[in-house]
Amino acid sequence: MALEDARVGRRNEAGIAAVIGILKQAFGERFQTGVAYRAQHAHTTTYIPAQFPDGVLFVEGADDVKAAVRTCAEHKVPVIAFGTGSSLEGQVNAPNGGISLDFSRMNRILEVNAEDLDCTVEPGVTREQLNTYLRDTGLFFPIDPGANASIGGMASTRASGTNAVRYGTMKENVLAVTAVTAKGEEIRTARRARKSSAGYDLTRLLVGAEGTLGILTSITLKLQGIPQKIVGGVCGFPSVKAACDAVIMTIQMGVPVARIEILDAAQIKACNNYSGLSYDERPTLFLEFHGSDETVALQSAQFGEIAAECGGGEFLWTANAEERTKLWKARHDAYWASRALAPTLAALSTDVCVPISRLADCVSETQADLEAHGLLATIVGHAGDGNFHVLLLFDDTAADSVAGIEAFVSRLTARALAMDGTCTGEHGIGQGKIGFLEQELGGAVDLMRQLKASLDPDNILNPGKIFRMG
Amino acid sequence: MALEDARVGRRNEAGIAAVIGILKQAFGERFQTGVAYRAQHAHTTTYIPAQFPDGVLFVEGADDVKAAVRTCAEHKVPVIAFGTGSSLEGQVNAPNGGISLDFSRMNRILEVNAEDLDCTVEPGVTREQLNTYLRDTGLFFPIDPGANASIGGMASTRASGTNAVRYGTMKENVLAVTAVTAKGEEIRTARRARKSSAGYDLTRLLVGAEGTLGILTSITLKLQGIPQKIVGGVCGFPSVKAACDAVIMTIQMGVPVARIEILDAAQIKACNNYSGLSYDERPTLFLEFHGSDETVALQSAQFGEIAAECGGGEFLWTANAEERTKLWKARHDAYWASRALAPTLAALSTDVCVPISRLADCVSETQADLEAHGLLATIVGHAGDGNFHVLLLFDDTAADSVAGIEAFVSRLTARALAMDGTCTGEHGIGQGKIGFLEQELGGAVDLMRQLKASLDPDNILNPGKIFRMG
Repeated sequence: MALEDARVGRRNEAGIAAVIGILKQAFGERFQTGVAYRAQHAHTTTYIPAQFPDGVLFVEGADDVKAAVRTCAEHKVPVIAFGTGSSLEGQVNAPNGGISLDFSRMNRILEVNAEDLDCTVEPGVTREQLNTYLRDTGLFFPIDPGANASIGGMASTRASGTNAVRYGTMKENVLAVTAVTAKGEEIRTARRARKSSAGYDLTRLLVGAEGTLGILTSITLKLQGIPQKIVGGVCGFPSVKAACDAVIMTIQMGVPVARIEILDAAQIKACNNYSGLSYDERPTLFLEFHGSDETVALQSAQFGEIAAECGGGEFLWTANAEERTKLWKARHDAYWASRALAPTLAALSTDVCVPISRLADCVSETQADLEAHGLLATIVGHAGDGNFHVLLLFDDTAADSVAGIEAFVSRLTARALAMDGTCTGEHGIGQGKIGFLEQELGGAVDLMRQLKASLDPDNILNPGKIFRMG
Repeated sequence: MALEDARVGRRNEAGIAAVIGILKQAFGERFQTGVAYRAQHAHTTTYIPAQFPDGVLFVEGADDVKAAVRTCAEHKVPVIAFGTGSSLEGQVNAPNGGISLDFSRMNRILEVNAEDLDCTVEPGVTREQLNTYLRDTGLFFPIDPGANASIGGMASTRASGTNAVRYGTMKENVLAVTAVTAKGEEIRTARRARKSSAGYDLTRLLVGAEGTLGILTSITLKLQGIPQKIVGGVCGFPSVKAACDAVIMTIQMGVPVARIEILDAAQIKACNNYSGLSYDERPTLFLEFHGSDETVALQSAQFGEIAAECGGGEFLWTANAEERTKLWKARHDAYWASRALAPTLAALSTDVCVPISRLADCVSETQADLEAHGLLATIVGHAGDGNFHVLLLFDDTAADSVAGIEAFVSRLTARALAMDGTCTGEHGIGQGKIGFLEQELGGAVDLMRQLKASLDPDNILNPGKIFRMG
């Protein structure tokens, strides 16, 4: 963690000083201004330099959030929600300074309605905490972005991950939220009904808004029944194209695969080294099927036939929980496995998402690009959604190395956009992809700015993210 | 169709006259101001009195929409999108007059990407037209709100229907739209990727906005593979409670039922009479399963066990396409079957949606309410979503009869809200449910007004719908 503050934005010094005084008075030790706290709350799993907030408030309930936002609103000072700091595009940075609201103490599970398959949680609850809590109910929350992120952060970046191909993203799995607006008022976006046509979809407007339109104070989530049977498996392919063809056929035939992940040969090599495995070093799909004894057997057999047709190797699958856990642990450790390829280098994880028919092209062209530019990187993707990540390892102290990485990300994004894809499938825009959002959506970004200006005219809610104002 | 204009809003007479002149000049016979055209475009399947627009423009492309909106914007005249007129809450009425844009000629299917399971259509394409077009591709579009509505209208009211329990609503099935803003500029909300974290979810903001934030000019939809096997079945229950218990267990156990509809005894009686059937006149579930030979057999057997456990009768199912079509035709004709109970009376179809655990209570209490007030009505519901419709038959020429119906709808909505439900699961707010939206979401409606004011400051896009401004 670098204790260096790279803030460059316009700071409202008088307002910040006033807010610090008020919050100290009101919250005592729950409000911290020490540099270690400030640094920690600008620190994320990102290559983007940290920009520290001026103070950190450990909120314990919606009333704290309202009070803090009202104070910040009165003095026109930025306020930034912080979950676990696992965002990847600088979402929690404070370019203009301001107050970080730490939600780690707002981690209560408020309500579980098992009959309705829903629950309501505070934003600081993490996905692992929620699933541990739910275990005895026979239910689970399926969204799995890798990191043990907070539900508030996952909602705010519209997270997804390995299970999205079966269960959807946060967009599909948040039923309602409560949020504090820039005026410091708490609103509720929807009731607990499974569907509604009642007015504008404020739930979906706040999901993915990265804390720029309101600060979440509770989230009502859909839950799923824990499948009676889960089987996992692995299948190697002679080429990325062959693996992607198998994915397309699987999706087209409506096989309800729960996970279908692609790892390129470089990633498999890294995983073998890191996790002590011995997979063939070639493009590989990791799969999981959820259902009953009968349905998972059917689905696995269907996939095996598809894989064979696409030139894949034998589809090895297991219902043994321990073996399955080991398999998926290797997949989840892919990030650390790649980092271990060059432990002294910095890492940048970027993602794009394309229509599934273009996934093979996009991955293959990206591999050729990496090779042509001599870049060290691994590729792992949520293939069923057409979404993949490139983890680049580079020397962040060398300007030409950084420039080379930035140029690569530009080419990757241009490639995805040319295929009618998006510049980010699940990481969000934050600070890192502001320019790409304009390339992707053009005039629609002006409309986003209009919405932002109407709900947050003083631009106090997480300013400098998603787009630049004015 | 009543040729009577019940407009009561504030009219900008000078602006309307100017716009009529300009559109006549620009569009010739494609712009009509005759009373028959005007009446037809305020006519919907609703009890709400018609409020005619001042003219109807048959748009043939996005450029027409842009030109019309720019003209209306310049003169501050309302502009209202019209699909097929099957909305139920007065969504196409023109309380302040203005111009109706008829999309029936914008009915081209622009693109089908079979490999990606998506397509892009103009708003005037109807769901039946789309499915007829898709038949040879092996794909289908699952959203089925009953009426042969236009895709633009379905998106704008966030429609759903019988298949939503399996395939979701329009919210889950629209990947992207293009829309003309109140300034007359066309924007695109997203690319074709299956998921994206790129900025605010403008797609979901426009889906369900009832044409008040922008006018759709194209819609990109998710498609599904036509299931290898479809079976349908019917099962009677001794009570609404028993039927709902079977639904809850089915959903909780994760049986991927494609349709699970509840019809109350009164509705079954009406269907028997209308469609020449002989079902036992008791609460009944209509079901459909989609999958392979093996999976539909498994699912049907699972449901049969659940039904038996809940005291249901024998679960009779068929894979025969003709029998299945007959069964679902009876379900789809439920509206007309109910109307036939009293052909001279007017009908009001209203809907609410509650958490599924409360469905039995909500339906049972509603039946008791109908009985206590001597109202003639049938109930049919998308039970898997907790969503049900009450079709009330009443004399719309008698003030006390109308008042009685209105009082019932208020009680029904209050009941649903008290159960943490919504005042409308799929019909939308339109004019008919404006007051209920305030009851349901309180301060969040102010936020909707702020959004509306920012995107449409002169309130020209379908004014008087969802909420009242100022």
